[in-house]
Amino acid sequence: MSKKIKVGNVYIGGEAPITVQTMTNVLSADVNKLINQVRELEIAGADIIRITVNDLPAVEGFKQAVKKASVPIVADIHFDSNLAIKAIEAGADKIRINPGNMTDLGVKKVCDALKYYNIPVRVGVNSGSIAKKYYEKYKNSDLALVESALDHVRLLEKNGIDNIVISVKSSDTVKTINAYRLLAKRTDYPLHLGVTEAGGGEQAIIKSSIGIGALLTDGIGSTIRVSLSDNPIREIEVGKEILRALGKDNNFVDIISCPTCGRTEFDVIGCAERLREKFKNTKVPLKIAVMGCVVNGLGEGKEADFGIAGGKEKSVIFANGEKVATVENDKAENYLVDLVRRKLD
Amino acid sequence: MSKKIKVGNVYIGGEAPITVQTMTNVLSADVNKLINQVRELEIAGADIIRITVNDLPAVEGFKQAVKKASVPIVADIHFDSNLAIKAIEAGADKIRINPGNMTDLGVKKVCDALKYYNIPVRVGVNSGSIAKKYYEKYKNSDLALVESALDHVRLLEKNGIDNIVISVKSSDTVKTINAYRLLAKRTDYPLHLGVTEAGGGEQAIIKSSIGIGALLTDGIGSTIRVSLSDNPIREIEVGKEILRALGKDNNFVDIISCPTCGRTEFDVIGCAERLREKFKNTKVPLKIAVMGCVVNGLGEGKEADFGIAGGKEKSVIFANGEKVATVENDKAENYLVDLVRRKLD
Repeated sequence: MSKKIKVGNVYIGGEAPITVQTMTNVLSADVNKLINQVRELEIAGADIIRITVNDLPAVEGFKQAVKKASVPIVADIHFDSNLAIKAIEAGADKIRINPGNMTDLGVKKVCDALKYYNIPVRVGVNSGSIAKKYYEKYKNSDLALVESALDHVRLLEKNGIDNIVISVKSSDTVKTINAYRLLAKRTDYPLHLGVTEAGGGEQAIIKSSIGIGALLTDGIGSTIRVSLSDNPIREIEVGKEILRALGKDNNFVDIISCPTCGRTEFDVIGCAERLREKFKNTKVPLKIAVMGCVVNGLGEGKEADFGIAGGKEKSVIFANGEKVATVENDKAENYLVDLVRRKLD
Repeated sequence: MSKKIKVGNVYIGGEAPITVQTMTNVLSADVNKLINQVRELEIAGADIIRITVNDLPAVEGFKQAVKKASVPIVADIHFDSNLAIKAIEAGADKIRINPGNMTDLGVKKVCDALKYYNIPVRVGVNSGSIAKKYYEKYKNSDLALVESALDHVRLLEKNGIDNIVISVKSSDTVKTINAYRLLAKRTDYPLHLGVTEAGGGEQAIIKSSIGIGALLTDGIGSTIRVSLSDNPIREIEVGKEILRALGKDNNFVDIISCPTCGRTEFDVIGCAERLREKFKNTKVPLKIAVMGCVVNGLGEGKEADFGIAGGKEKSVIFANGEKVATVENDKAENYLVDLVRRKLD
C-alpha cells in the first residue's frame, strides 16, 4: 500500500480509487482557449488536469484556469524554478518537475514554496530527461530512470518535502514496465503511470494499454495518464477504458460480444455497437452479452446481467443467466433494450 | 521454456517467434468467399488462420481453403467429433476443440485421427464453455478454466496425444491474466493467448492489449489471437502492434512522437502521421522521433535513429543521437525523409 497524497480535493495513493489525468495542449497563455479546454476535459471525466507553465504569459492563463476549474490543476514546470514558484502562488494544486533540468538551488526555493502552500509535487523523470550523472552510469535504462527519480526524491526530502508522487516514463513499453516494477520495490510514495511519447493513433493506445495495464494488474500505480498525440479528451477516454477493463471502474454498461465467425448468422457487430451507443452515458454497473450463436452464447449468458444469442431467424434473450424469451430477430434487440431499461428504472 | 509444437510449416512454443493468429468470419461453406478471406489475411500478415467447421458444407469450404492457403490452417470444432475427423482428413494443420462440449468417446475417435495424420490439437476452454464438473466446483473462475483445460489435456494424453496447445480465455481481462498465470505454472505445453468476446471497437483493443501484453511481458504465451467484433484483418493489425510494442517484432519503422502540450508550436501530430504512412511498408528496424520542443526532443533524439524537434520557425534534425541540421519548418520534414531514405537505400 502506497502513501496517500492529497491533491486539491482528490487523493492519490493508499486505498483511493485510481485517478485518470490528462494535460491541456492549447497555448497556456491563451486564457479563453485554456479555460474552455479545461472545462471540456472535466466533462470528459478527467480527475486531475495538468497545464504547462512554460513562460510568464502562461502563468496568467494558469491562474485563471485554476480559478475556474472544479478538478485539481497541476502545473508542469521545466528548467525554471521561478515559474514553478509563480505557478504555486497562482494556486497550483500540485506541481510536476523534472529532475534532469533544474538546479539544486532552484529546487530548494521551490521546496520552500511547496511547504508554505502545503501542496504536493511529482518528480517526473522520462527517458528524455534522465539526470546526467545517471545517464552516464546506466545509459538510458530502466535503472537510470529509477535512480534518477530517487535521487531527486532524496533532494526534495532533504528540503523537508514528503508529499511526493513519482513517475518514470519511457517511450519503450517494456522499459516503462520494468522501471516501475523496480521503483515500486524501493519507495512507498504513490506512482503516476504512463508510457511517454507513445506516438499517435492505435499504436499509442496499445502501448499505453499494455504498459499501464500490466502495472495496474500487479497492483502498481495510483494515478494514470495515457499520452496520445491527439485531443486530450481521447486520453481520458482511453484511460477510463483501461480502468474498466481491469475492473477498477465498474459504473458503466459493459457490452461484451463474440468475435463472430463462420457460424454467425446474426448482426453481432451492429447490435453491440447500437447497444454501446444507447447505454454509453448510463453510469450503472451492468453487463450485456451479444453473441452470434449458442456455442458460447448461453455459457457467456451465465455471467452477463442480460444477453442476446442471435440465431438465423430467432434470438434467445437471457437475464441473470436464465433464458427469458425467444424472439424474432427483427424484434429481439428492442425486446432486450426494454428489458434493460425496466431494470434501470 | 515451453514445448515446441509444429503446425504445418510454423512452430508454436520453445524459442519460436510469437505467432499472430486470426479466424475467418465468412460462411465456411461459401468456398469463394472463404478462399478470398484467407488470402486477405495472409497478405495482412496472419501466421496461422483458423476456420470454423460447423457443418458438412463447411467441410468442403475448409478443404478448398487448406489447398489454396500458404499458411497453416486450423479447424475450429465444437460438439461434433465426426466434423473434427472430417476436417483432419480434409488437411487441417491443427484442430481446436473445446473440452466442455464433446463426449469422451468422441474425443477418443478424434485422437486416433490426430495420431494417424500426426497433427496437433488446441484445447481451447473459454469462460462460456467450462466443463460442467468444474463449473459446479469452481464457478466461472480462473481456476475453473485451468482445471477444465488440464482435465481435457489429461484425457488427450490418455489417448496418446502430446502435441497440444492450450488456451483459457475469459471475457474478463483480469480473470484471463490470472488463469494463464496459473496455467503456465502447471504445464509446459505452449499457450495460445487471447481475451475472448472482447467486444467491439476500442474497448476490445484495450482489453486484448492489456491481457495479452501483461502475459507476454511475463514470458507467458507462444501464439496470440486478438478477438474483435470486426474484420479479422484488424485482429492481425492489432496483434502485430502488440508484439511491436513489446519488442517482439522489430522489423518496422517506429514513429514515436510527444503528446504535444502548451509548449508545442510545431505540427507534431500531422508530421508523425505522414511519416508513419510513408514508411508503413518498410520492414526495417528503425526509430524516428517527432518532438514538439527541445524539452524532451533532444533527449529522446538520443535513442532514436532519426528525429525532428520542431520549433516555432526552425526544426532541429538529428541522426544517431547527434544534431545534424537546423532547417526552416517548411523544409524540415522533407529533409528528414531524404535522410531516412538514404540510410534505407
